[in-house]
Amino acid sequence: MGIGVTNVAAQSNAVFQDVHVMIFIGFGFLMTFLKRYGFSSVGLNLLLAAFALQWGLIMQGLWHLDDGKIKVSIFKMINADFSTATVLISFGAVLGKTSPVQLLIMTILEITIFSINEHLVAEILEANDVGASMIIHAFGAYFGLAVARMLYRPALRNSHENDGSVYHSDLFAMIGTVFLWMFWPSFNSAIAESGTDQLMAVTNTYFSLAACVLSAYAVSSLVEHKGKLDMVHIQNATLAGGVAVGTCADMDIGPFGAMIIGFVAGIVSTLGFKFLTPILASNLGIQDTCGVHNLHGMPGILGGIAGIVAVALGKKNGSAAMQGAALASSLGFALVGGTITGLIMKLPFWGQPPDQNCFDDSIYWEVII
Amino acid sequence: MGIGVTNVAAQSNAVFQDVHVMIFIGFGFLMTFLKRYGFSSVGLNLLLAAFALQWGLIMQGLWHLDDGKIKVSIFKMINADFSTATVLISFGAVLGKTSPVQLLIMTILEITIFSINEHLVAEILEANDVGASMIIHAFGAYFGLAVARMLYRPALRNSHENDGSVYHSDLFAMIGTVFLWMFWPSFNSAIAESGTDQLMAVTNTYFSLAACVLSAYAVSSLVEHKGKLDMVHIQNATLAGGVAVGTCADMDIGPFGAMIIGFVAGIVSTLGFKFLTPILASNLGIQDTCGVHNLHGMPGILGGIAGIVAVALGKKNGSAAMQGAALASSLGFALVGGTITGLIMKLPFWGQPPDQNCFDDSIYWEVII
Amino acid sequence: MGIGVTNVAAQSNAVFQDVHVMIFIGFGFLMTFLKRYGFSSVGLNLLLAAFALQWGLIMQGLWHLDDGKIKVSIFKMINADFSTATVLISFGAVLGKTSPVQLLIMTILEITIFSINEHLVAEILEANDVGASMIIHAFGAYFGLAVARMLYRPALRNSHENDGSVYHSDLFAMIGTVFLWMFWPSFNSAIAESGTDQLMAVTNTYFSLAACVLSAYAVSSLVEHKGKLDMVHIQNATLAGGVAVGTCADMDIGPFGAMIIGFVAGIVSTLGFKFLTPILASNLGIQDTCGVHNLHGMPGILGGIAGIVAVALGKKNGSAAMQGAALASSLGFALVGGTITGLIMKLPFWGQPPDQNCFDDSIYWEVII
Repeated sequence: MGIGVTNVAAQSNAVFQDVHVMIFIGFGFLMTFLKRYGFSSVGLNLLLAAFALQWGLIMQGLWHLDDGKIKVSIFKMINADFSTATVLISFGAVLGKTSPVQLLIMTILEITIFSINEHLVAEILEANDVGASMIIHAFGAYFGLAVARMLYRPALRNSHENDGSVYHSDLFAMIGTVFLWMFWPSFNSAIAESGTDQLMAVTNTYFSLAACVLSAYAVSSLVEHKGKLDMVHIQNATLAGGVAVGTCADMDIGPFGAMIIGFVAGIVSTLGFKFLTPILASNLGIQDTCGVHNLHGMPGILGGIAGIVAVALGKKNGSAAMQGAALASSLGFALVGGTITGLIMKLPFWGQPPDQNCFDDSIYWEVII
Repeated sequence: MGIGVTNVAAQSNAVFQDVHVMIFIGFGFLMTFLKRYGFSSVGLNLLLAAFALQWGLIMQGLWHLDDGKIKVSIFKMINADFSTATVLISFGAVLGKTSPVQLLIMTILEITIFSINEHLVAEILEANDVGASMIIHAFGAYFGLAVARMLYRPALRNSHENDGSVYHSDLFAMIGTVFLWMFWPSFNSAIAESGTDQLMAVTNTYFSLAACVLSAYAVSSLVEHKGKLDMVHIQNATLAGGVAVGTCADMDIGPFGAMIIGFVAGIVSTLGFKFLTPILASNLGIQDTCGVHNLHGMPGILGGIAGIVAVALGKKNGSAAMQGAALASSLGFALVGGTITGLIMKLPFWGQPPDQNCFDDSIYWEVII
Repeated sequence: MGIGVTNVAAQSNAVFQDVHVMIFIGFGFLMTFLKRYGFSSVGLNLLLAAFALQWGLIMQGLWHLDDGKIKVSIFKMINADFSTATVLISFGAVLGKTSPVQLLIMTILEITIFSINEHLVAEILEANDVGASMIIHAFGAYFGLAVARMLYRPALRNSHENDGSVYHSDLFAMIGTVFLWMFWPSFNSAIAESGTDQLMAVTNTYFSLAACVLSAYAVSSLVEHKGKLDMVHIQNATLAGGVAVGTCADMDIGPFGAMIIGFVAGIVSTLGFKFLTPILASNLGIQDTCGVHNLHGMPGILGGIAGIVAVALGKKNGSAAMQGAALASSLGFALVGGTITGLIMKLPFWGQPPDQNCFDDSIYWEVII
């Protein structure tokens, strides 16, 4: 085995850079909302992503050997960023409660399992998932939630003093939100098969996100005290439209179809933050720090279902049954893989932070107070 | 009526993304300079822009129906971002003193009026305005100033305690400034007709902005106490060169022509912040929170005049009279449209914030102190 | 002499914008880590860069007159940004201890000297340096260190109270770090001769940076108390791989070759911050505020040496001797040029800040406390 380089269309480079910005700035700063965990959010995001993209290149490359070698191309680098995204989504579920070593172990296992599921969905089931609602977003979210369940900390049941934001930490997080929002059309169109498909994916994602912002703001204002807006909803639920339109992004669903998907995703996501997250934490022992279930989990499933419906309606070649199987496979690999990974991460020698030091940079970073 | 998708040159996608960054990061963070209004600045910017681009697509699309449908393309999406820019400029004039509902009403009316003026300028008068000094910047600024005049608050005559910055809020604002500055060449060249025109627009804007930075810093230092620099000038006046070169951006004015325009714009803009803004507030009842008159208003008029001169000198096909008519039309629609819009926004049931809650996120956002 | 515009490949525009982001956001925010010097970091960075790119266009243009004129193109604008980068690197060495006027003088002299060395290396020696490890990074670093030596301030021997970071200033700096990290592949490939070379430079830089992150984190944790990470290392040493792979970026060194270079660069850079910087300050009188010796100096030399080895191994046409001469020339021009420039900057009438006002925005900016 070796690694070589193959040529690709010049155009892809700009798209690759957009995706890269989402991975490193988008995910990194989105998680800086915690008042004392910004170094870890953006710093460990950089560490995990730099490691994950190398591991992802190898894992995905093994499925597509060319003359016994892993050939590198911009397309492969985009796919490596995609595999990285699953890890960063799961990172959000356990943010503040895991050590760097635990997270590196999660990275290795999650990307390995991701690559198997991705191969199954794309090559065996031949399902459509251009924007990866199922294989990245739903997979990453439920994998992370399963890990979070395994790492349940009863002592954090009543919220930790550092598990919250301050004014400027919320503004740093908005840097992440806005970059994710702006470049999501590039993400969903990055691996589209033709220029036409790519344009379709760009415009569908653009419409879904625009509609999603409106419903997220409306629902946030409806469910909050005195009609106020909640930054947690704005930082996250405004992006759910990008997740949910992923599977159908390159299908001819029309602008209104895309907007309906985005609009519903914004509602579901905001309601999830308000009502479901507290229940998961108190009743099921799933402490989901960033609420990835609301941003990636439910909207990812919604995207998978939208894909089943769209294929059934003939919007793209394929089989509705195979789309359903792809969704089930992604959820199954995520839940089983995440549970096993969580059990391994729970072993007592990975430097897991004690309860009182959760959500606090000073345990892993030199911090001047 | 329906909405469809048409294909375009692949190259435009990167330019579209640059313009998108200006709209969402540039405008959003530029307005975060206020110490207690950052959530609203970047958050309402996202809401208004996501709404405005949909409304802009429809309003501009109605003038260019294709087979009874609005066809969507990257070019149309760039134009939707352009119509959005007018709203965000006007938002700057009334920042901190309006409710989200008032701003959504302003968005609907302003984009509708913008579309009429844009059609008149581009299709009837056939005037040149590739970088939109007149139809976006001057229009957006004077529209916003007219609204601000209608919403005059005598109680804010002596400045409000929250109408100012703190150290880190000024740094957040610089994120907006620098992204606007860097991508302005893409903005001014985005709808140029040919590759040559596009390159011309990129280089002219680049030179104008570079010269503008020098004059803005020089004048800021000259007019301030002890030769110090004022962050307000740096955040804003350094961008005036991008505004002022807009109309002529695709004309063969030469690098020195572009630099003269930018240099003058930087001077005019900085002097405006220092001397004119206080007069407008105290004598004319125009409380221009972000100083859009200095960044978009006067430099926009300067751009319009430069366009008249350049066309008269034969730098581009067209008629100096039509350029003048385009400028007059843009100002007229802005002032009349802004006045009417302001009167509607003044109606007492839109949830306008009371004087003591102006410039304060906590009236519309859940803020943890 | 005049200035005209020539056409280029459309593709370059996106690459130019990436490089532009590195210059204005990357360098600007990287230096905001100081607790009370953020306005100057990002503000003076904008001023110097806007001035430097104009001066760089003229200085480099004089070597490539076309029909007696300096013709402007995207390629020339990329090169102007490159010459600007040298100044911003040197700025890092003297950050907090120089007046704007001193820095403008440094800009004029440094770019003039850079242009001579660049012409010598590229045209006379015909050495390879696509990503400019030698002519930008090593040159800029040692030029700045020579200036810093000339401006030695004994009173700052025991560190100044403002010569350090606070929590949020470190997060602002990470904006710079991550944007530099993400777009470095564009930087190293921007002036590659063909599409194949460009792709090679992108992938080599990508691999080098990914490996560098891992070694920087590992070494930071190894050398710090209790295995903690130090933000200074993360902000800077993670980028050393981009510097060190610069000269060889377009050579067929293979992914593993690139990763070895990056891995070593991350180690050298982190160790430099930990052990060498304090020695330079206390024993040699070189007070290197940002540690440019560790990020640009040593990794730049490493890149130059890697280039000699790679050319000797036949990875690219050229002569190992000429590569060595190019490295020596870059270091020689930097040290001699920086010393002379430092002596001129030391003249007592440029408004140099007194010792107690170093690292403090309030001497040059209106700051509201």
